Amino acid sequence: MRTRELHLSAYPRGELCDSDFAFVEVELRDLRDGEVLVRNEWTSVDAALRLRLRERAPAGYFASFPLRAAMDGIATVGVVVESRADGFAEGDWVAHAAGWREHAIVEAEKEALGGVGTLRRIDVDAAAPQAYLGVLGGSGLTAYTGLIHVAALRDGDVVWVSAAAGSVGLLVAQLAKLRGHRVVGSAGSPDKAAFLGGKLGLDAVFDYKSGSLPELLGQAAPEGIDVYFDNVGGDHLAAALTALRPWGRVAMCGAISEYAASTPVPGPDNLFLAVAKNLTLRGFRGSSYVHLRAEMEGVFGPWLRDGRLISPETVVEGLENAPGALARLLHGDTIGKTIVKTG
Amino acid sequence: MRTRELHLSAYPRGELCDSDFAFVEVELRDLRDGEVLVRNEWTSVDAALRLRLRERAPAGYFASFPLRAAMDGIATVGVVVESRADGFAEGDWVAHAAGWREHAIVEAEKEALGGVGTLRRIDVDAAAPQAYLGVLGGSGLTAYTGLIHVAALRDGDVVWVSAAAGSVGLLVAQLAKLRGHRVVGSAGSPDKAAFLGGKLGLDAVFDYKSGSLPELLGQAAPEGIDVYFDNVGGDHLAAALTALRPWGRVAMCGAISEYAASTPVPGPDNLFLAVAKNLTLRGFRGSSYVHLRAEMEGVFGPWLRDGRLISPETVVEGLENAPGALARLLHGDTIGKTIVKTG
Repeated sequence: MRTRELHLSAYPRGELCDSDFAFVEVELRDLRDGEVLVRNEWTSVDAALRLRLRERAPAGYFASFPLRAAMDGIATVGVVVESRADGFAEGDWVAHAAGWREHAIVEAEKEALGGVGTLRRIDVDAAAPQAYLGVLGGSGLTAYTGLIHVAALRDGDVVWVSAAAGSVGLLVAQLAKLRGHRVVGSAGSPDKAAFLGGKLGLDAVFDYKSGSLPELLGQAAPEGIDVYFDNVGGDHLAAALTALRPWGRVAMCGAISEYAASTPVPGPDNLFLAVAKNLTLRGFRGSSYVHLRAEMEGVFGPWLRDGRLISPETVVEGLENAPGALARLLHGDTIGKTIVKTG
Repeated sequence: MRTRELHLSAYPRGELCDSDFAFVEVELRDLRDGEVLVRNEWTSVDAALRLRLRERAPAGYFASFPLRAAMDGIATVGVVVESRADGFAEGDWVAHAAGWREHAIVEAEKEALGGVGTLRRIDVDAAAPQAYLGVLGGSGLTAYTGLIHVAALRDGDVVWVSAAAGSVGLLVAQLAKLRGHRVVGSAGSPDKAAFLGGKLGLDAVFDYKSGSLPELLGQAAPEGIDVYFDNVGGDHLAAALTALRPWGRVAMCGAISEYAASTPVPGPDNLFLAVAKNLTLRGFRGSSYVHLRAEMEGVFGPWLRDGRLISPETVVEGLENAPGALARLLHGDTIGKTIVKTG
């Protein structure tokens, strides 16, 4: 059987180009025992993929994608079309990590993406299939564990979320709001700021491109912040260090401002404030907290069903358009979870 | 009654000069109710004082020292010569925070230095008076709480301590050794490295000036480290981020490499490794953990008395020599706790 998949042709320099990718037709081999064949229906597009599109991914991170081969470790959901694995049958909806291809052969027992991408059935009666890429998938796990366990959210904390219109940020912001916190959200356009203040109902919002970041943050949180959920790094982290009150905490989730850099980006020049104010900066990957997925689903699932939690999506049709969707996401042009309809 | 004290004449630029300080004779006012008069016998000299010798101390930190006035918030021990406060009598040995002067009037109930410098009696039968400036004082509290509570030392952790021949570092290194850990220590001269490998018996030591810091650390800890106790900042923190294993922790205690800088120093350019490896960086001040002093004394006190813990001192005679002693400490010329004999 023939199918199509995206390959990386060259490691992009700076912004992604179509020519860095190839959409190729390949012959699928036969299934072996313990494997299933999945028709991927929806595939995730995530900012952090940019790190694996570098010739050398950061040490300790997931490996770089190889050239001229299918990319492993991209979350996707689809339907089992053939199964030679116990516990999986034709017609089952599943989630796994062999995305950016139209069909995938997946080993049922194989651990992928530290557990997040390991093959598992999903309950499409409880939520739409693509929700298992976003609010009930990696984005949800990252948002939930980052705010609750990494930043150790406490009663009364004032929370700042950067890239708050992104797939993770909007869940962090809503989770903090639903727990009764004052929440400041920032993003990189007037439209996104309006979304944060309107649909998400955050307490203070700003477009960080509209002025001086420290001043905008100071106006949004005149008495300071206790938690900063960092999706951006760079000047955003520096501004947070200044605004954080004693014993404040940073959940270091991502640094989208630095992902495409070809040379190392200097860290914040005010890091000593961590000593002065007893601050904690804790980096994390959602995939390292996969053991907390049931806890996350127990919180987000009911809120998603009763409409208290919204999870807007930017949907792109056709797998061949995935690289372009990633480019637009990295450029800051999207709101919510970006997903590609592949089936 | 007349006494002498050190005043700051000008905020030093870069290295300290004698002309930045004045040793002046002043008239002491009469005691009021609730106060004691102390003849200070020993006074502490600490690297972090440099931060308060800047026109603007880091936000959130202790305030800058004012010009042409006694400096408040420097740990000292001495003998009560007159008391109008309940619980204190002539002849009592006490610790407080009105150092860098020969006599001090101290309010018994007044909170100083976040509690570390608050007037309290010390037991000079249990340890030499000057020990209450070092191993049983602020240095001990910083070392103990930093390693045990801030870095959350766990069984099996490999620990790197920078400035390990300094007053805090040598206690951290010994505490980790006495708890059974593999300990790497670094310092800035062959003599200090020899002290770390010899008297302290650390598992691996290096003089960071003898080569490339990442390479020296890599040789000392070929399989990486789990805890970094940071007294230096700058390139040391960057090297630690590279060497730390997943779930590693940094106790950010100080950044002596940056204290005299007149412009902000860029942070490490590899901070994203905190995300990639689930690292925690936690800044702290020992004075914020004064509630743990009894716990610290319970650990360090017995070890100090039975000789398992050593606490070498660099002793300077005469208060007028305190600024020069601080300059030598900041220059890296001293081993152990620097103290001034003032009485």
